[in-house]
Amino acid sequence: MSQTLIIPFHKGSMDQKHLMGGKGANLAEMTQAGLPVPPGFTITTAACLEYYQSGRVLTEERKKEIRNALKELERRSGKTLGDPDDPLLVSVRSGAVTSMPGMMDTVLNLGLNDQTVLGLEKLTNNARFAYDCYRRFIQMFGDVVLGIPSYRFERVIEEVKEECGVSEDTELSHEDWKIVIETFKEIIREEKKIFPQEPAEQLYQAIIAVFDSWNNQRARIYRKIHHISDDLGTAVNVQMMVFGNMGSDSGTGVAFTRNPSTGEKSLYGEFLINAQGEDVVAGIRTPEPISALSERMPHIYKEFFEISNRLEVHYGDMQDIEFTVERGKLYILQTRNGKRTAHAAVKIATDLVNEGMIDKRTALNRVDPEQLDQILHRRMDPDADVTVLTKGLPASPGAASGKAVFDADTAERWSQEGEKVLLIRSETTPDDIHGIISSEGILTSRGGMTSHAAVVARGMGKPCICGCEEVKIDLNNRKMLINGTTIHEGDTLSIDGGTGKVFQGSVSLIDPELSEEFQQLLKWADEVRRLKIRTNADNPQDAVKARQFGAEGVGLCRTEHMFMETDRIPLVREMILAETAEERQKTLDQLLPLQKEDFKGIFKAMDGLPVTIRLLDPPLHEFLPNQEEILTELVRMQMEGADPVQLKEKEDLLRKIRSLQEFNPMLGHRGCRLGLIYPEIYRMQVEALLTAASEVVQEGVRVKPEIMIPLVGHVNELNIMRTLVAEVAEEVESRTNQQITYTVGTMIEVPRAALTASQIAEEADFFSFGTNDLTQTTFGYSRDDAEGKFLHQYIEQKILPDNPFICLDQEGVGRLISLGVTEGRKVKPDLKTGICGEHGGERKSIFFCHQVGLDYVSCSPFRVPLARLAAAQAALAESESTV
Amino acid sequence: MSQTLIIPFHKGSMDQKHLMGGKGANLAEMTQAGLPVPPGFTITTAACLEYYQSGRVLTEERKKEIRNALKELERRSGKTLGDPDDPLLVSVRSGAVTSMPGMMDTVLNLGLNDQTVLGLEKLTNNARFAYDCYRRFIQMFGDVVLGIPSYRFERVIEEVKEECGVSEDTELSHEDWKIVIETFKEIIREEKKIFPQEPAEQLYQAIIAVFDSWNNQRARIYRKIHHISDDLGTAVNVQMMVFGNMGSDSGTGVAFTRNPSTGEKSLYGEFLINAQGEDVVAGIRTPEPISALSERMPHIYKEFFEISNRLEVHYGDMQDIEFTVERGKLYILQTRNGKRTAHAAVKIATDLVNEGMIDKRTALNRVDPEQLDQILHRRMDPDADVTVLTKGLPASPGAASGKAVFDADTAERWSQEGEKVLLIRSETTPDDIHGIISSEGILTSRGGMTSHAAVVARGMGKPCICGCEEVKIDLNNRKMLINGTTIHEGDTLSIDGGTGKVFQGSVSLIDPELSEEFQQLLKWADEVRRLKIRTNADNPQDAVKARQFGAEGVGLCRTEHMFMETDRIPLVREMILAETAEERQKTLDQLLPLQKEDFKGIFKAMDGLPVTIRLLDPPLHEFLPNQEEILTELVRMQMEGADPVQLKEKEDLLRKIRSLQEFNPMLGHRGCRLGLIYPEIYRMQVEALLTAASEVVQEGVRVKPEIMIPLVGHVNELNIMRTLVAEVAEEVESRTNQQITYTVGTMIEVPRAALTASQIAEEADFFSFGTNDLTQTTFGYSRDDAEGKFLHQYIEQKILPDNPFICLDQEGVGRLISLGVTEGRKVKPDLKTGICGEHGGERKSIFFCHQVGLDYVSCSPFRVPLARLAAAQAALAESESTV
Repeated sequence: MSQTLIIPFHKGSMDQKHLMGGKGANLAEMTQAGLPVPPGFTITTAACLEYYQSGRVLTEERKKEIRNALKELERRSGKTLGDPDDPLLVSVRSGAVTSMPGMMDTVLNLGLNDQTVLGLEKLTNNARFAYDCYRRFIQMFGDVVLGIPSYRFERVIEEVKEECGVSEDTELSHEDWKIVIETFKEIIREEKKIFPQEPAEQLYQAIIAVFDSWNNQRARIYRKIHHISDDLGTAVNVQMMVFGNMGSDSGTGVAFTRNPSTGEKSLYGEFLINAQGEDVVAGIRTPEPISALSERMPHIYKEFFEISNRLEVHYGDMQDIEFTVERGKLYILQTRNGKRTAHAAVKIATDLVNEGMIDKRTALNRVDPEQLDQILHRRMDPDADVTVLTKGLPASPGAASGKAVFDADTAERWSQEGEKVLLIRSETTPDDIHGIISSEGILTSRGGMTSHAAVVARGMGKPCICGCEEVKIDLNNRKMLINGTTIHEGDTLSIDGGTGKVFQGSVSLIDPELSEEFQQLLKWADEVRRLKIRTNADNPQDAVKARQFGAEGVGLCRTEHMFMETDRIPLVREMILAETAEERQKTLDQLLPLQKEDFKGIFKAMDGLPVTIRLLDPPLHEFLPNQEEILTELVRMQMEGADPVQLKEKEDLLRKIRSLQEFNPMLGHRGCRLGLIYPEIYRMQVEALLTAASEVVQEGVRVKPEIMIPLVGHVNELNIMRTLVAEVAEEVESRTNQQITYTVGTMIEVPRAALTASQIAEEADFFSFGTNDLTQTTFGYSRDDAEGKFLHQYIEQKILPDNPFICLDQEGVGRLISLGVTEGRKVKPDLKTGICGEHGGERKSIFFCHQVGLDYVSCSPFRVPLARLAAAQAALAESESTV
Repeated sequence: MSQTLIIPFHKGSMDQKHLMGGKGANLAEMTQAGLPVPPGFTITTAACLEYYQSGRVLTEERKKEIRNALKELERRSGKTLGDPDDPLLVSVRSGAVTSMPGMMDTVLNLGLNDQTVLGLEKLTNNARFAYDCYRRFIQMFGDVVLGIPSYRFERVIEEVKEECGVSEDTELSHEDWKIVIETFKEIIREEKKIFPQEPAEQLYQAIIAVFDSWNNQRARIYRKIHHISDDLGTAVNVQMMVFGNMGSDSGTGVAFTRNPSTGEKSLYGEFLINAQGEDVVAGIRTPEPISALSERMPHIYKEFFEISNRLEVHYGDMQDIEFTVERGKLYILQTRNGKRTAHAAVKIATDLVNEGMIDKRTALNRVDPEQLDQILHRRMDPDADVTVLTKGLPASPGAASGKAVFDADTAERWSQEGEKVLLIRSETTPDDIHGIISSEGILTSRGGMTSHAAVVARGMGKPCICGCEEVKIDLNNRKMLINGTTIHEGDTLSIDGGTGKVFQGSVSLIDPELSEEFQQLLKWADEVRRLKIRTNADNPQDAVKARQFGAEGVGLCRTEHMFMETDRIPLVREMILAETAEERQKTLDQLLPLQKEDFKGIFKAMDGLPVTIRLLDPPLHEFLPNQEEILTELVRMQMEGADPVQLKEKEDLLRKIRSLQEFNPMLGHRGCRLGLIYPEIYRMQVEALLTAASEVVQEGVRVKPEIMIPLVGHVNELNIMRTLVAEVAEEVESRTNQQITYTVGTMIEVPRAALTASQIAEEADFFSFGTNDLTQTTFGYSRDDAEGKFLHQYIEQKILPDNPFICLDQEGVGRLISLGVTEGRKVKPDLKTGICGEHGGERKSIFFCHQVGLDYVSCSPFRVPLARLAAAQAALAESESTV
């Protein structure tokens, strides 16, 4: 019985995690591996449950067992609890089976009292340190065990510092700390509580407090949110404290087994002689590089070097190790897999394979795909010394520096004169396209992650920050105010679209590189993955880039971006404003050859690979100028007594814009609803793309066009659009004498489409899940509104586990996807399925896509390598779970 | 074999509908019942299928059988096909098993040729008629059999009329028709087709044409849309033609067995001596009332009277009978259940039960619930002579007349002076509430069925027309233009909110009445139905009204309408504009007692019945003044050099309005998302409603409050809101010393809520399906945009079978409801479920709610009786399908 209630570290193992908790089992594992871990023992979860069952009482029997375990610990440590000369001090920490960060109650330095503090002073020859330890212990004991809020103790320290006229804790002398300690004791007495001087009593009470902490409200809420059972209980770890400040034969340090920045294989870290970890943090003394340890304590260095190698082999990964030397003896306090940059992660993973330490599968799991964004975009020099001005929404990753300009024309002009510019607007419209093209990056003060600026910038792979609300643009005076700083047009700024941060001045940038190791890793990924990876590309350049990154086709080509190019937009507007079908047809006839050329470029770039082309999707008013601007112009023209004909034209334009305005454009007249009401637009697009296909086929290109009808909610919509495509195809074929094989499918982006997938599949060759819109409609969130208003708070308060626009909501949206795939395939077993929302480039979402059996994911060109890796990890995870 | 290929009417029956088609079987049924139906025979669907199987050939064998059937027909009719003196003429009509209206090919007067037309002339003593019949036959034969489009023949008639200088067909003489006939023949020759003079050949070709018509494109598309199998084939009915214009012993007429307007039991109809049905339609002669027939043709009247009674008994319902008398012999051409007004429907159904002709269950099925709207709202006198000015969206039913006013203040002032007014606005805002209250009805030129005006008007039971786009309001000149008609403020208009029509001048109105028969019928309905019927009521008046109509509780009390009352809105705005939580709390404290009084009134009205109260739902900007108006005011103030303090206030207001503006308000910061970010608002509401409950309990009222958290998409939202409710409840209880039992549930109105119903049910006592919003999010439609833009065309083109905002979409939205109910109940078997969207008052939707096992439907007060009846019909339909 007592064996499962208390387990010393040297008798435990990882297999006993359910009893010892994560922390305890890990300490046992290290101890078993022969590492010099400070000795200790774990009071198991079984003891915790027994404690609750027996009415929250620590029985005399248990106390006896604890005393026995303590005796064993004293034997191993050579110290005794309460010994005034060389007191054993211990830490008491909770350690649940499932990690519950922030929920752990901890008491350090237990064993100190009015006597033993003198022993500690003598041993460390540091009175200030000894009394600081003591006051910390009382403070933690007061808070965790006696339930006196920590701020009451903190206030005392503040008062004493004020009296002494100092601002930092480190400036207090041991005499000051003694006053603090006496005041602490007084507070405890005031609260009618008792601070026990007897170390054993301290220990019992601390253990009880940790048991009790399992059931406090904070912990219960945490478990509820994270679906952790209330019945598990927590373990309690009692471990000897060690001190690195007991003289010149003591010290403390941290080291990585490889360079966490480059991945290079060499011990990397730092240490301080005669110091505690806190001294390093406080920055009073400058630590020395770990290599210097070989001269200062050669035998310790040798031991540590061997241990670090052993740990790397044991855990099969680069380790981040904390150690302390107490009076010439090395103790390993903690080891864990070290954090590293993306570059280092890739290098270490491939190196470990080459060193025979891990296999390829393990290597693939070692790199976090999300981290790869660092590698794949131009990024800021991490060592740059920069001033952050403000922060907005990280709308498109990558970093850029340039001169601030406040309108598109200026951006274009300056750029043609050889300047690098950043375009800064309250929000962008199609009118700004030439400015966006000319700029290094875009910054807007309004709009969210799906605003015009964000979407266009992501498509172009340009850095972009949106909704940067602290930016106040004063267009008249060609300047802006950010948090009190005035930036004039022409001043240099830098932006990091991956973090949303805006910096003053220029920042040196690092170009992206695909290292040899990275290529190697991705090749291994390709061997493993089942999911195909396609790209979202709206123009030939993006398609070429994506293919270089390994894209296996285009999953989404948004034709509206072609409409927004500077040479098209006047025609597109004319088309929209046309009063008659003939007028409209005339402008469509002019658009056709332009659009055809776009398609030819993309088909050539994707020679032999499938290209999914989505017909026009956004509401038509998105192509028209801003209503307020036209209104302003109109008023000005009226006041200036403009030509009546021009006035009339402007009025007509305003009227048409107004008539196209919508209350909820996201749910308005768009997608195939446009194609059904204005079939001539879709006809033109289909004719352009099929003619393009037949022309490049003449040049020997192999084309696989997939025509995608957006926003289908009812099978009849697809049915009619499919007939339209077939009619146009027949016309093109008879004109060109060239048969083009094409497929017709739909984007599943409203819940009804998923819910009626079995009907829609009858008419569809493929389903592409448009998870951006599907998330909006399934949640009933407008992304543009939610991200600016409540979503941030939702995620912070853990109402939602993740931002569903970044990480696919599997329970809701995912259920629709899964249902759509299953029911669609029941009707049409060879139905091709994919995803083309932004989730197609996110790791957890890619895992889900793999699990529900999609054929491919499609993401922006820069995320293709990431998706290749994530798809491989998903395949590995599946094969592991089925083994 | 030949028996199933051709069936004479006197040998067929309703059981053979699958062979004879609907029309043929019905004629057989009447013949079998001994009615004097003109003789004929049916060529069955089996023959049609054989025709297709044998390569679209009418074999000699079949022709022989047709000739035999024809001989039998000649024997029974006493006439012979092709007899120049007394020719038998027949009609040839298609008749499918499932009715396909508009798809039926028909040839009348078959048997006419250059000879027999002379016989017809002699018999009718009417050359004009005979040649008109002949040209009609050629025209139909040319179109249906020879495939020459009808317009080519019509053009000839137009040309002849032009030459003769006349405008109506009836003004042409028999000589004119002869010219027409010759020209028709010429057209047929030009088309290289032959018009056969031989009647038997005419018959064969007509039969083949009807067979072929089964497979034309129009019919195939119709069947595809209506899910009718292509393999059924059509029957062909060949029937003797009879003529009522063969002298003073002939005639034609139409009669109802009961008065279709009042339901009174007496023969109701009209007839014309020596006339064909077309003469009645053409309006050349005025028909006589059917009662006069008893003097003009006493024996015919007696026979018809007996037959009409027999038909009523046979079909068990009021009949609409067409008859013709040919040379002293009565023929019944058609009988069908007669169309009737809602009043008549109720009276006839209850009378038939009292006469022992049908049982109660049948009576319940005899009244179309949708028709009841006529009874339950003030309606226009159907005989009123009125000019329709334009048509808008029928946003709230009922009719109203009043003087046009263009702003709310004028509406209130005039109304206080005793005028009846109609409020006419481009759209309404909360600022207009006092004007809406003062008006008889509301007309807006913009906005859809869920616009502010529409929702408020429906809540108040006031007639309302929205989105009336042809109305151009000129506020400056206090007038408006509708389709060229100028209406000045003060001019009288009338509106019918049930049809969306706007009329010039005043119209006499008929008040709603709940007749004794209607009460009786509803009592029977209550005995049968399983669904409970609740009402949507936002104020005590509505609650009282609904209870009178039989509501069994409140299913939805929208608290925002309380916020919009004139005395609240300034406070609500202050609350929204508050910069600090304290300021906000101050205004909330002032709102609390007002809201409490509302709740008390509703609780009292619903004494003993449950009341579901939904906490604040709409986005806050809905309570603020219109942005454009404030902008205009601000500019005016700036130009007038207003007081800087006032200017600043106005600017602040505008800034706040702007900051609350949303791209897609429907998907924005609303519902429980408000409650989570501004919990103080929900706290106030819960405190108000629970305090109200505890106060009325003191007065002996029994309260059953159900607190509804709107727009929940994730269980955590409900979880947190539920905790908030419990906290407030505890406070109220300890303050009032009165325990109130309440439940907490949610509205399921975004797809994610339905998809995760099993999680949400854990925290919910009830689910109320908010099908208005659920339809918007499931389809991805903004109702306000869709109804003005594409939805109309979608329904017209049959892309959607119904308007999903009126008739619940069972395949998509319904699937979510069904899934929500099933999975919710799996977790919580006693979960209460209901529906509170507008569908709760629509017949087909109520059937669906019954089928999926909801506990109740909730609808506007005026639709409660309708819902009671529909719920009974749903229960009956179920019990029939399970018998």
